[in-house]
Amino acid sequence: MVARINQFTFDCRDSYALAKFWTQVTGYTENPKYPNSPDEEENYIGPGEALPGLLFINVPEPKTVKNRLHLDLSPDTTRDEEVDRLLGIGATLVADHRKEDGAGWVVLADPEGNEFCIERSDAERGEN
Amino acid sequence: MVARINQFTFDCRDSYALAKFWTQVTGYTENPKYPNSPDEEENYIGPGEALPGLLFINVPEPKTVKNRLHLDLSPDTTRDEEVDRLLGIGATLVADHRKEDGAGWVVLADPEGNEFCIERSDAERGEN
Repeated sequence: MVARINQFTFDCRDSYALAKFWTQVTGYTENPKYPNSPDEEENYIGPGEALPGLLFINVPEPKTVKNRLHLDLSPDTTRDEEVDRLLGIGATLVADHRKEDGAGWVVLADPEGNEFCIERSDAERGEN
Repeated sequence: MVARINQFTFDCRDSYALAKFWTQVTGYTENPKYPNSPDEEENYIGPGEALPGLLFINVPEPKTVKNRLHLDLSPDTTRDEEVDRLLGIGATLVADHRKEDGAGWVVLADPEGNEFCIERSDAERGEN
């Protein structure tokens, strides 16, 4: 007996806008059967037919503290190119943990302040 | 250019104990190359070679508010059997949203208070 993880769910102020941002981060897409809309309280994106996806739900309360849970991601390009790309689409810099030897990671936040980490790519990890 | 989700990361007090609990929830396993240990600050479990996994990191600060991000899961048995199973291994009940018509979900918390939802199984969704 086990349970399957269907989605990572974000409480948010604007689930439609946040789903759009995370679509740009991950390349995930909406479910064509249930298209996303600013009129919906919930908006979903996922990796095609696979799981888990990301679900965004409008809630009344604001974010108040550093999130206890966060996503760690690695790019298909390089860590530094990806950080620049994400800063260009609305992410903000929280903490830069890049090291002189090329290792390390960067903490960014999405447009609602949810922290996430960009690690090195697989290729970069292999090189270091 | 996209970023791949490697893991969903939990800040916690006891990353070893929490990894053990979530192993029982998900059936995920440790990475045999990096066995989990109470002496490690980080402990990881994942779905074999696949991604994303779950990473648990010891942090000094306690959980203070309802998590802004949470996991939604569905069982390979039934929602109600799974809720009973998880309550038996250390989860606590946060909110019961089960409806008379069989729909709905249950909010549980893991041993450190991280909220998560148990939805109906695929079979139960098909039946309702």
